[in-house]
Amino acid sequence: MPAIEAGKQGAEAVMNVLAISGSLRAGSINSALCRAAARLAPPSLRISVLPGLGDLPLFNPDLEASAPGAVRGFRSAVAGADALIIASPEYAHGISGAMKNALDWLVSFEGTVGKPVALVNTSPRAHHAYESLREVLQTMSLCIVAGASVALPLMGSCATEEAMLADPQVRHCVEALLEALASHLAGRGASAPSFPLGW
Amino acid sequence: MPAIEAGKQGAEAVMNVLAISGSLRAGSINSALCRAAARLAPPSLRISVLPGLGDLPLFNPDLEASAPGAVRGFRSAVAGADALIIASPEYAHGISGAMKNALDWLVSFEGTVGKPVALVNTSPRAHHAYESLREVLQTMSLCIVAGASVALPLMGSCATEEAMLADPQVRHCVEALLEALASHLAGRGASAPSFPLGW
Repeated sequence: MPAIEAGKQGAEAVMNVLAISGSLRAGSINSALCRAAARLAPPSLRISVLPGLGDLPLFNPDLEASAPGAVRGFRSAVAGADALIIASPEYAHGISGAMKNALDWLVSFEGTVGKPVALVNTSPRAHHAYESLREVLQTMSLCIVAGASVALPLMGSCATEEAMLADPQVRHCVEALLEALASHLAGRGASAPSFPLGW
Repeated sequence: MPAIEAGKQGAEAVMNVLAISGSLRAGSINSALCRAAARLAPPSLRISVLPGLGDLPLFNPDLEASAPGAVRGFRSAVAGADALIIASPEYAHGISGAMKNALDWLVSFEGTVGKPVALVNTSPRAHHAYESLREVLQTMSLCIVAGASVALPLMGSCATEEAMLADPQVRHCVEALLEALASHLAGRGASAPSFPLGW
């Protein structure tokens, strides 16, 4: 019996999820959230954190046809994932350049079309970059998963992976969004994006 | 008599303007517009086109204190200019990553505060990235000069520097926006940004 059939009968297939942080800062809250999500993954999700966003060159349309190795590796990682988690900071009311640059390399890449995305906002008091990211991802034909795309209550001292795992409310929120993503991937969730979020 | 006094009496001081294209494509319309603007500069403006946007590393807040050489050169060029011209493409309804990355390096740089900017839209049918750029630049406390921030009628074949210079309507628009920028710098123009533009 193929694996997918086994999944349908209860022993769910494990889905590969790629978590992408839009910050290159070593102490980034968004990167910490990605690592925390990987540790809280339910059995049906295998979450890996993208290590090399900072290795990408700046996007140049002239290089599309002969994309540099770092770009090919990034595209391959995205194409090989069943879903993405994206958590990115807001700089001056805009998407971080590093995040947008990575997305620019995917605009003409067919491996992203219809890809489910959990778009997580780690700065509930900021909304410009988050709304811009929604617009960009939808324009790129990715599928923003409603229940998995949430603002997390990461105020105060909850800025590290360990602090997130130790905070019951944050831990619950992350587990809930991962469950929503898993449900979507298992075909039980809603696929339509919801907007705006309730903050 | 100091130069500034001479300017007040008719022989205006020449102002340095830095033109920045947000595209790395060799045949970029935005880069062509920057070069065309440099060639159409009135006597009171000296316009240079930034050559090295693509040399900037991806922004990392951890490197702010010891910014790489390319960043220091970029910041120095911006600080040394009396005004900026920014022309940038829209990718997937967002600011190009290359442009936003450059701006990210300027967010905490005091040399940009209050700097006048002519924000030019070379794609009149697109507006998401332009509006996002306005939001980002205003958040960074740059001063968007109203009459110099326009959408250019660059449809069809008017995609090169030479074609722009040869097209009477485009040439007139570029000359008019440069005149508005020059007037602003000479203290005769309005400083308040106008929004939305009339397209």
